[in-house]
Amino acid sequence: MTPPDLDRVREAARRIAGIVHRTPVHTSQTLDRDLGARVFFKCENLQKVGAFKARGATNAVFALDEHRAAAGVVTHSSGNHAAALAWAARRRGIACTVVMPEGVSPIKLAAVRGYGATVVICPRAEREATCRRLAESSGASIVPPYDHPDVIAGQGTAALELLEECPDLDLIVAPVGGGGLLAGTAIVGNAACVEVWGAEPEAVDDAYRSLTSGVRQPGVTDPQTAADGLLTGLGALNFEILSAAGVRIITVGEEAMLSAARFFIERMKLVVEPSGATVLAALRREQSILGGRRVGAILSGGNTDFSWLSR
Amino acid sequence: MTPPDLDRVREAARRIAGIVHRTPVHTSQTLDRDLGARVFFKCENLQKVGAFKARGATNAVFALDEHRAAAGVVTHSSGNHAAALAWAARRRGIACTVVMPEGVSPIKLAAVRGYGATVVICPRAEREATCRRLAESSGASIVPPYDHPDVIAGQGTAALELLEECPDLDLIVAPVGGGGLLAGTAIVGNAACVEVWGAEPEAVDDAYRSLTSGVRQPGVTDPQTAADGLLTGLGALNFEILSAAGVRIITVGEEAMLSAARFFIERMKLVVEPSGATVLAALRREQSILGGRRVGAILSGGNTDFSWLSR
Repeated sequence: MTPPDLDRVREAARRIAGIVHRTPVHTSQTLDRDLGARVFFKCENLQKVGAFKARGATNAVFALDEHRAAAGVVTHSSGNHAAALAWAARRRGIACTVVMPEGVSPIKLAAVRGYGATVVICPRAEREATCRRLAESSGASIVPPYDHPDVIAGQGTAALELLEECPDLDLIVAPVGGGGLLAGTAIVGNAACVEVWGAEPEAVDDAYRSLTSGVRQPGVTDPQTAADGLLTGLGALNFEILSAAGVRIITVGEEAMLSAARFFIERMKLVVEPSGATVLAALRREQSILGGRRVGAILSGGNTDFSWLSR
Repeated sequence: MTPPDLDRVREAARRIAGIVHRTPVHTSQTLDRDLGARVFFKCENLQKVGAFKARGATNAVFALDEHRAAAGVVTHSSGNHAAALAWAARRRGIACTVVMPEGVSPIKLAAVRGYGATVVICPRAEREATCRRLAESSGASIVPPYDHPDVIAGQGTAALELLEECPDLDLIVAPVGGGGLLAGTAIVGNAACVEVWGAEPEAVDDAYRSLTSGVRQPGVTDPQTAADGLLTGLGALNFEILSAAGVRIITVGEEAMLSAARFFIERMKLVVEPSGATVLAALRREQSILGGRRVGAILSGGNTDFSWLSR
């Protein structure tokens, strides 16, 4: 697969305009004072389906030609991507099938079905094979959650909008799990000569280890973190993009991440899922080198059960 | 006291511009579909100090002439108004004293002190007298929490902004406790020929009883409600304004109010305190008569301890 470039992100922006939200940018004077920087939060928690995933899924669904689209789309995911793809498919009026592992939470299942998708349950180890088999038998297009040019280009539109609204940023930070959002952000940031950082939980630090070693590392098995949106390992295409762009990964501890999530909900009145709060935890960790810089930070989503709030 | 008019609200808007936030308006397609109406939420939960109270306090503080201002301001309140007045006084660089009752929560105390105010603790029954005594001895101006023309005019600026952004509203709904926000909203709504409703918890329904009987009723003693911003009785000046404007009060039950607060946090990713969520509960209660109308709803604040979230 060829990595997408800035033109492809711009094309995605044109394609998804008017379908997904152009999300607002929020700031906090208290935080800026504490950090000694100016931080502009791109609120993808206020995006359709509550996460940036709506961008990539919408771009992938609407990029299909009429013939391909008529056969529908299929994916395997139990998180925000599944909901986003189901939502985008419904917007285009095409079929969507989501493969989910046995034991998936009833809430996630209901959310995806609520958007009109067909859910197929299978053993966790057979998800990819089941997805491929469904695609082959139905002609549906597979839309993977992160490692795909159309998905990456779609996710990059968040950074594109952020730079349109705040053109003189010095740095953009985004969370990294599979790496679709961070890769899209890196493509946009690099073209604008803006430094890009990824924020990753220490408990699932394969992106950090991959980019420091120069060799893509396997994802962490059974990671213990509240960042349930960042459990997957870094995708191959995303590794390639992030390596070429010289993206730096900042790892953050659980308590720092949850403390950041609490800051958003208590002080900024915004629900940010722990995965999204990693960006603030990363900025706090690197505070000593922020000195007066203008920083963009992508709040990836707001889908959470709030179990971390009372900890 | 003479009730403020629209010109006074406009004057307040000019005075506080650039000091308080012009808050965003959020919408939810899911909610609009469920209600069969279009609802525009004015997000005062994203206002300075987390509540619309910043508007009235800022207007009152900046309306003082140099001489009066130099002697500072004083109030009695243990809620958002206390924090708002402390914040506004600091913005003008003048002294602020807040009288709080014995037993006030340490969190509220710390918030007000954090904004630089002096806190005086006294028995609950002596708050007004203590406030007057402090004003007399220091020359400070008393800024009451709701029953004052400058405060009412300041609170009215939220509805003014909402109508500027959504000029063709049929109805605006705002919570009612002491009535400053609702009175300011009624002044603006009446001038624009827009119907105005107040949303009030059943547990503290003195505004409902006052406006239906035509005689101001005493506030409820020791009301049992999670709407901790709406515990006070309706002010005399506000009663006068609301009566003249023909404002209708919709009372809402606790469960309906908390269900609405959950909708905001789970679906719209916004923290809205239970007091503010009354507006959605009121709209749901009156859904049968909303049919296709364009509704403005003022989310009064977002300061909460989240204890209602797990109920």
